[in-house]
Amino acid sequence: MLGNFTYSNPTRLHFGKDSLNALAEEIKNYGKNVMLVYGGGSIKKNGIYQKVVKILQDGGKNIVEDGGVMPNPTVEKLYEGAKIAKDNNVDLILAVGGGSVCDYSKAVSVSAYCEDDPWEKYFIRFEDVSCKIIPVGCVLTMVGTGSEMNGGSVITNHDQKLKIGHVFGDNVFPKFSVLNPEFTYTLPKYQMVAGIYDIMSHILEQYFSGTDDNTSDYIAEGLMKSLINSSLVAVKDPCNYEARSNIMWTATWALNTLIAKGKSTDWEVHMLGQSVGAYTDATHGMTLSAVSMAYYRHILPYGTQKFARFAVNVWGVSPEGKTAEQTAKEGLAAMESWMKSIGLVMNITDLGASEDMLDGITSGTFINEGGYKILTKEEVKQILKESL
Amino acid sequence: MLGNFTYSNPTRLHFGKDSLNALAEEIKNYGKNVMLVYGGGSIKKNGIYQKVVKILQDGGKNIVEDGGVMPNPTVEKLYEGAKIAKDNNVDLILAVGGGSVCDYSKAVSVSAYCEDDPWEKYFIRFEDVSCKIIPVGCVLTMVGTGSEMNGGSVITNHDQKLKIGHVFGDNVFPKFSVLNPEFTYTLPKYQMVAGIYDIMSHILEQYFSGTDDNTSDYIAEGLMKSLINSSLVAVKDPCNYEARSNIMWTATWALNTLIAKGKSTDWEVHMLGQSVGAYTDATHGMTLSAVSMAYYRHILPYGTQKFARFAVNVWGVSPEGKTAEQTAKEGLAAMESWMKSIGLVMNITDLGASEDMLDGITSGTFINEGGYKILTKEEVKQILKESL
Repeated sequence: MLGNFTYSNPTRLHFGKDSLNALAEEIKNYGKNVMLVYGGGSIKKNGIYQKVVKILQDGGKNIVEDGGVMPNPTVEKLYEGAKIAKDNNVDLILAVGGGSVCDYSKAVSVSAYCEDDPWEKYFIRFEDVSCKIIPVGCVLTMVGTGSEMNGGSVITNHDQKLKIGHVFGDNVFPKFSVLNPEFTYTLPKYQMVAGIYDIMSHILEQYFSGTDDNTSDYIAEGLMKSLINSSLVAVKDPCNYEARSNIMWTATWALNTLIAKGKSTDWEVHMLGQSVGAYTDATHGMTLSAVSMAYYRHILPYGTQKFARFAVNVWGVSPEGKTAEQTAKEGLAAMESWMKSIGLVMNITDLGASEDMLDGITSGTFINEGGYKILTKEEVKQILKESL
Repeated sequence: MLGNFTYSNPTRLHFGKDSLNALAEEIKNYGKNVMLVYGGGSIKKNGIYQKVVKILQDGGKNIVEDGGVMPNPTVEKLYEGAKIAKDNNVDLILAVGGGSVCDYSKAVSVSAYCEDDPWEKYFIRFEDVSCKIIPVGCVLTMVGTGSEMNGGSVITNHDQKLKIGHVFGDNVFPKFSVLNPEFTYTLPKYQMVAGIYDIMSHILEQYFSGTDDNTSDYIAEGLMKSLINSSLVAVKDPCNYEARSNIMWTATWALNTLIAKGKSTDWEVHMLGQSVGAYTDATHGMTLSAVSMAYYRHILPYGTQKFARFAVNVWGVSPEGKTAEQTAKEGLAAMESWMKSIGLVMNITDLGASEDMLDGITSGTFINEGGYKILTKEEVKQILKESL
């Protein structure tokens, strides 16, 4: 655990089959005006919307609705939501949905009273919040982003062909989140599997850096082993509570700042995937899976020892009689087999990307320090080409 | 992750070589009167006391001192501390020391305004806090108990020959803790090693229960592997920052409620160890190591599969061609070798216990549900006898 850092995570999590019961208590801490944020309306079909509305009504709240949040929330939607929140003097933003709905709600919470253009301030200039923040609570219905216990928020600007994430401080983290694994049962398999790889990618982005001995890496390995085991159960039996609950819990701890402590990170798979997403509007987790194998095979020579450790500790590869490079490559091959077996998209062509987009996707890919290799623009394009 | 639970941990952690710098900011959140709690005075020799006092003085605080907290804080000391806190209208209790100092400070924080006898209310009747709570902050100088990020507090009553822990709610958790691994360098090796086994025992107490697939167990395995690796470095090279920092971070996450989520726990090694401690006043971690092997060999037949998993995942035992029982026993043998190699006390005789105390220690041992075997009083006595 080299370096200095602060850990602070004030989000209160209510987990389990009965966890929605906690909402009635939680809302007592806030004023009358609740902005109810959700996506395409699936929560009306599965009855979660009705349960939430009843709890809010029984608690004497005025409900201001803001539905229709898209899978990749747009900057235009953000401007609308911020206006709704301000005009209605909202006391609590309640996000009911997946990561997009939570991300969007956090963006609204810091934009309603922002005197600047929030897109420019937060997503282009990456400035801190300097205005009043509206508290956010979440009822999670889709698993993967970890948005329920962190300050992350990703917004897409289609005009500018940019999809950018800002990581806000702990004053923007959800005050509480309700995590009921059963609420994720009705999700289509494509979305479930994309979420599983989103979790895996979050862990990998933090794991693949550094050469020191760091407790965070051991925790990361444990989380990956749990995720892999449960994913194999869940793809065959989506209503297996044990598997779905482990996946939900792993998602939260994969990206709530814990396993990044003492680590540098470059988030390069996300940089690649988000740029693919800006061009294709594809499901986030699938943009990550589609570029991962080309990316990891490309950086393996720069972090061979860590990739070999990954092979042994996560995938059970025996290192006996092998070079570190051989062990490392076997680990990536094992990961690739697992990815295919659970039904992930393995190339960006299947997501709608084509060769003529590569220059644009390349130029929209941020290049960060912190991993085993700082990519050049040429390498970015080569990785994308190998991902076609 | 079966069952319903809430996770909430509001403690802010400042970690690293420069982490004491955060104290100046933290104390701004509290009023003028700070009660400075510490132990036998080693913090005056290594200069931490002087640094803390300067920060408090520069921050304009009135300091009320309460030193001399003993390794097993007594109920008489608690009564004194509670009176000091109340008489001086204390706004913040700042614990500078190890787990005993933190535990004691939390006990004082809920006892100062308690209208009942706090020993009776919290440690005999296990009642919730119903009075004003004085906020606590910690500067940690000794690692093991996890007290810096949880609600635990253990108090000893010598007259009643009882050493009892109460786990308070998150409103009693320290508001902040400063974790500087370098502050632990001057600790005698005996104390360091005792702390390492205290951490290991915390993880084991939560790990050895249940037969389900639970993410908490995977995190626990990661923490144990990190701890074992770093312990082997630290016993040879106590000033190895990497090892000491990993041990410090592992200690915090071993007992801050995370790895207990979705688990039942009986804390039976602690029940045995605490009763030994009440009779011998021995160092806490050593009372745990001294009874562990006899206890785990005794319960192995009731949780063979989990002990076999422990052997494979934590100790690298190969299960090839072996029964689960054989694998499980090899795992315990590997743990025993590690315990001896780092210099732990392996029997209670060396701690001052003798055969004539066994009836008393047995009667002071609480027997809990939640593990693989609910012990009988006869089994408790047998385990203690085998630990002589």
